[in-house]
Amino acid sequence: KIVVFVERLLYHRKDLDGQHVLVTAGPTREPLDPVRFLSNYSSGKMGYALAQEARDRGAQVTLVSGPTRLAPLEGVNLTLVETAQEMFNAVKAVFPLVDIVIKAAAVADFRPCHKAQEKIKKDQTGLVLELERTDDILGYLGEHKDKQILVGFAAETGETITHAREKLARKNLDLIVANDITVEGAGFGVDTNVATLLFKDGTFLTLPRMTKNELACKVIDGIVKLLKFQQGG
Amino acid sequence: KIVVFVERLLYHRKDLDGQHVLVTAGPTREPLDPVRFLSNYSSGKMGYALAQEARDRGAQVTLVSGPTRLAPLEGVNLTLVETAQEMFNAVKAVFPLVDIVIKAAAVADFRPCHKAQEKIKKDQTGLVLELERTDDILGYLGEHKDKQILVGFAAETGETITHAREKLARKNLDLIVANDITVEGAGFGVDTNVATLLFKDGTFLTLPRMTKNELACKVIDGIVKLLKFQQGG
Repeated sequence: KIVVFVERLLYHRKDLDGQHVLVTAGPTREPLDPVRFLSNYSSGKMGYALAQEARDRGAQVTLVSGPTRLAPLEGVNLTLVETAQEMFNAVKAVFPLVDIVIKAAAVADFRPCHKAQEKIKKDQTGLVLELERTDDILGYLGEHKDKQILVGFAAETGETITHAREKLARKNLDLIVANDITVEGAGFGVDTNVATLLFKDGTFLTLPRMTKNELACKVIDGIVKLLKFQQGG
Repeated sequence: KIVVFVERLLYHRKDLDGQHVLVTAGPTREPLDPVRFLSNYSSGKMGYALAQEARDRGAQVTLVSGPTRLAPLEGVNLTLVETAQEMFNAVKAVFPLVDIVIKAAAVADFRPCHKAQEKIKKDQTGLVLELERTDDILGYLGEHKDKQILVGFAAETGETITHAREKLARKNLDLIVANDITVEGAGFGVDTNVATLLFKDGTFLTLPRMTKNELACKVIDGIVKLLKFQQGG
């Protein structure tokens, strides 16, 4: 226990001191009507773990979060949002001010084309719901980034590394955290994850199953490496 | 404060002693694929308040709950479910054993016809989602009820009383709690509600805005009245 504590003290070497980090977390909710919505199983745990780790290592942290069961983090600026559109607006507002963006939120890709003003009645035996794409937040950030380090996630079901590598290039990311959510102990709701970090220079780091706090630490390590490279260090 | 405490002691006259009450609470989640689902804004607060009140007044309580942020209640049997189908199975299993059913859950009326085994890719600009009706749990209970007192909810957006009265008859309920979720301080998420209790004999009780705990108390009062009537008291 003492060893862990001392390691933690040594470890927290404030290597994000002076950096402003934007973390997005949780799901979004896309309303069909005043009662119903489309969402996903994201618990927000990975994003909150990243925000906490970044804070502990000296960063100024802004967390933009969809609806979760998690408590606000002390010392972290929190903006709560519901929809993908609200998430996009909140991210765009703070993006020019930050050095690092970690997009851990599971933003809805699709939303209902129309939101009914009244609750949809259930007279009919079925219903056809037309969905449209939401704005591509990560795509926007990749296009508009200046000096910012951009970190994304790829939660996949099969062919994880291929999909993630393709996403890293397409979205102009610096680092992507890929995980296969069908693997036991990975993905939504659980406290652990099994992930591979893929860097834009083609290097990668395959990690064993670990807690989301431990993975957050590895991701921040990766970001610090990128920062040093950027600074020619 | 002393007055409130004494009132509470007097009030808790254990008038549900010997009764077994089934309460359902919260939303359900209907998956589209391993990541996405359809749900609704129910917080579960109304159902949990009812379970707590029934317990305090001497009942044996079984609570079947969808996913909520609420802590389990001491002294209440809790069954956690996700989908409408799981909710239906859990309710059917316990229904023959209970005296009173309070269906406060906001069970999904529609679910995707097919659940994709893999995460739906977002290549396409849009998506058409075909939905089908879920089983009508309240309808089933109304058809199969023996001596059970059956209490339902009607969360409406406009023409609340008309819709609720029609539902009371169609579902063979003994009591329905009607509220217009567009009224301020009513409906999902918030801690208060504005409701009207409609009894099967045509009488009704329109209540002012009150906390969900207070409303739970009024609903249990209504049930006790029905019990007394049933027992010819």
